[in-house]
Amino acid sequence: MTALRGTHVIGGEDSALGTVTFHATAPSTGAALEPAYVEATAAEIERAVTLADSCVESLAALAPRQIAALLDGIAAEIEALKEELIERAALETALPVERLRGERARTTNQLRLFAGLVRDGSWKETRIDGALPDRLPVRRPDLRRTMIPIGPVAVWAASNFPLAFSVAGGDTASALAAGCPVIVKAHPGHPGTSELTGRAVAQAIAASGLPAGIFSLLQGASPEVSLDLVRHPKIAAGAFTGSLRAGRALFDAAAVRKAPIAFFAEMGSVNPVFILNEALTERGETIADGLFQSVTLGVGQFCTCPGLAVAVEGRTLEQFARTLRGRFQRGAPGAMLTAPIARTYREAAERIGSIPGVTASAADRGAVRSLEGVPTLFEVSDGIFLEHEELRHEIFGPATVLVRCESAARMLEIGRCLEGSLTATIHGTRYDLEANRPLLAVLARKAGRLIFDGFPTGVEVCTSMQHGGPYPATSDSRFTSVGTAAIQRFSRPVCFQDCPVEFLPPELQALSK
Amino acid sequence: MTALRGTHVIGGEDSALGTVTFHATAPSTGAALEPAYVEATAAEIERAVTLADSCVESLAALAPRQIAALLDGIAAEIEALKEELIERAALETALPVERLRGERARTTNQLRLFAGLVRDGSWKETRIDGALPDRLPVRRPDLRRTMIPIGPVAVWAASNFPLAFSVAGGDTASALAAGCPVIVKAHPGHPGTSELTGRAVAQAIAASGLPAGIFSLLQGASPEVSLDLVRHPKIAAGAFTGSLRAGRALFDAAAVRKAPIAFFAEMGSVNPVFILNEALTERGETIADGLFQSVTLGVGQFCTCPGLAVAVEGRTLEQFARTLRGRFQRGAPGAMLTAPIARTYREAAERIGSIPGVTASAADRGAVRSLEGVPTLFEVSDGIFLEHEELRHEIFGPATVLVRCESAARMLEIGRCLEGSLTATIHGTRYDLEANRPLLAVLARKAGRLIFDGFPTGVEVCTSMQHGGPYPATSDSRFTSVGTAAIQRFSRPVCFQDCPVEFLPPELQALSK
Repeated sequence: MTALRGTHVIGGEDSALGTVTFHATAPSTGAALEPAYVEATAAEIERAVTLADSCVESLAALAPRQIAALLDGIAAEIEALKEELIERAALETALPVERLRGERARTTNQLRLFAGLVRDGSWKETRIDGALPDRLPVRRPDLRRTMIPIGPVAVWAASNFPLAFSVAGGDTASALAAGCPVIVKAHPGHPGTSELTGRAVAQAIAASGLPAGIFSLLQGASPEVSLDLVRHPKIAAGAFTGSLRAGRALFDAAAVRKAPIAFFAEMGSVNPVFILNEALTERGETIADGLFQSVTLGVGQFCTCPGLAVAVEGRTLEQFARTLRGRFQRGAPGAMLTAPIARTYREAAERIGSIPGVTASAADRGAVRSLEGVPTLFEVSDGIFLEHEELRHEIFGPATVLVRCESAARMLEIGRCLEGSLTATIHGTRYDLEANRPLLAVLARKAGRLIFDGFPTGVEVCTSMQHGGPYPATSDSRFTSVGTAAIQRFSRPVCFQDCPVEFLPPELQALSK
Repeated sequence: MTALRGTHVIGGEDSALGTVTFHATAPSTGAALEPAYVEATAAEIERAVTLADSCVESLAALAPRQIAALLDGIAAEIEALKEELIERAALETALPVERLRGERARTTNQLRLFAGLVRDGSWKETRIDGALPDRLPVRRPDLRRTMIPIGPVAVWAASNFPLAFSVAGGDTASALAAGCPVIVKAHPGHPGTSELTGRAVAQAIAASGLPAGIFSLLQGASPEVSLDLVRHPKIAAGAFTGSLRAGRALFDAAAVRKAPIAFFAEMGSVNPVFILNEALTERGETIADGLFQSVTLGVGQFCTCPGLAVAVEGRTLEQFARTLRGRFQRGAPGAMLTAPIARTYREAAERIGSIPGVTASAADRGAVRSLEGVPTLFEVSDGIFLEHEELRHEIFGPATVLVRCESAARMLEIGRCLEGSLTATIHGTRYDLEANRPLLAVLARKAGRLIFDGFPTGVEVCTSMQHGGPYPATSDSRFTSVGTAAIQRFSRPVCFQDCPVEFLPPELQALSK
């Protein structure tokens, strides 16, 4: 059992120069958890970034197999933490142990997936235009393009995936895979889980013989740590998963820098589910069950939680709504990740429930503890929905808004008025889909992933995944934070013109002219 | 001969609702050119964007061959303008007729290159992860990824390429190729050339039977037109080529929108040229000739103009500098594109020349007209260069700064202190390159294209070109504005999960599971 030290890990070494401290809270009891963690100081941020910057050229010069071996090594070190990691994560997040074991597998699989991607090398999409010495009016030079690392990457860990979107999660894995040094700002909701993981990463780096400065872990609960980090001139890109408010604040800070940097923020998403008529008639009960499961999975704390369901009024919708209401009225409250998340959810639910014309269905809240979230179904007419813009925003937690439309035309109108989402889902028979082609075209404009006859929770980590959609779902819909394409965020193309072959990057040497 | 009308072209129709007018100026005489052009009004911007937005879904549903045919049609319409286009462009820009004919060929070749890319379809990089129905703990769904158009794109034309980076230039061609409607803000330096080209585009659209709203051309000389356009909520992306000041202002406006959008600005670039010792000894004379040609080409008004040359002190550098001085002292002044460009160049040259320790070599300025730029060589020691940050910024015009370093170590230090550039050039023998590997690694961090034993002017339009570098060269170094990869700016990935085959985009239907 490793004793937690409450420190940052900066280039492989412990550091705790600051004086301001914070504790994690156990969501299931509300108790503060030892040890105390220290806010990173400006000097510590400076040191972590300077170290990272000093490694850029040596990291860029590594053979792919060396980076791949590091990623595999990190996965192995995480597994070597065994149940200690799971127990601490469960304590800090109140997520079930089984879920955390699954998330650990996802995290290590993800690291190994990127190791394979790096070994394969084809993600660099090398291109060549050979010299044409006799072309008129001028010769064409030899031009070859590959991808190089963008530079030091700052990663902000998410609260809701203490392993897979945290210290050694998808952002860190894809940035390291691209050959970038990484500085992780840990989430204050699970600093102990972060420390354990951060030490595992540092351990793998030490074993690999690579420079220790390619990874640092900074703890902090104050916005200043995050702002100092994103503003540092040597940070080349940022990746964030969290709330719209925090993500936008960091995006704004990145954009107003003297030299702006790319900032990939995954923020709020309503993930609308459109249920078409024949599907509603044929399997309304099944859809209601699936929707309830998806909304309440992990106490609704998934970025792909379906926060909106849309269908056309009629007898079958009435039956569907009745079933769904029953599910929510019997739904059990669950401990949420942090006190601010629980408070924000409660306030949002109260605000939505108090809009005239909105009805709410939920279990009795009498016995609910302050850190618990109560599954809640809101129902609303299309007219009320269109009038109240706040109904279009994400409620982070186990709630969904069922919009009852008077016609398919109104359903299309609702599709058009939505903001961007990570996902959009359609339940429909072939006949339904054929009759609603314009709706499909509209939803493609609103989301990064279109799901048919399923539910948005459960994001596959694979080559064709797109986990990124129009704002505010993410700050740049052209990129994904899940799946192998996530590596594209952290590299940029360089074209070599008439470069002697022995000075070309290896992947360009092999190309025949 | 088409009479110029002085109007905008909004969805195929003339419009001139405004009251504020401006005229182009003939740089060779300083005379105002008829007709007067009207600044676009807020209502006209609104109409152009609304029309564009209304076409998004129908444009996205087109077969690739329809878009390809449109691009080919635009090329043919531009050619049909014959010498009228060349004559007006020469009048408005003072660029030589032969250069403009070459630029027209580049423009039409570029349109046809994108037509070919669209027909080929492989740029969408489709990906598939087939369903795994028996996988545990849960089945893997069928996941397929393709690219869809990002939405209406606003394009800001450049002053220095009135055809190839203007109304039907690379930004417009690549945005249309991606399936996006385009609104071009014409450059006020060549409104007549823009009107002719804009009508050619509208003509090709009319002949193709596609909706007229997919293209509009707005005229304007005031910042308000540009700001209104970039702030419009229905604009999904912007592309700009021009000055750092204007580009950054529009980038900032794009970033502070309620929903920020990607804004691709190609701005200032110093394009450093490093000349290593053996190369200097072996072919200093040839390099001096080539450098002078590259600096003064088109009166230095290329984004890839080499504004900085760096070499180590010694007898061969002294000989090189003497040769170069001679070239610049005999260099002929040339009419610059616009009065503001000529004034900014003159002021920058005076400012640089007055830094203590900087020496300037140029022809006598006595007889120079106000719109002319005089080729100027500045020489400076490494120490002075490192002290004065303004020496690191682009001077837009026929000037270059020769930095004489006391050692190779200082040359490396200079490489490290540079801002981002579109290009970096190295002249060196195999021995030189081997001895300066760290310099190569540093320059790769600073530029999008590394040129060996050549000069940066002359940008090939091909698949492996990278015309984009770290800030301030461009606002996003991960993208290019020249070459086929430019299309990636205007599309985004969408993943289809368990979509019935007949509702998949055609390029995903063909994939086997």
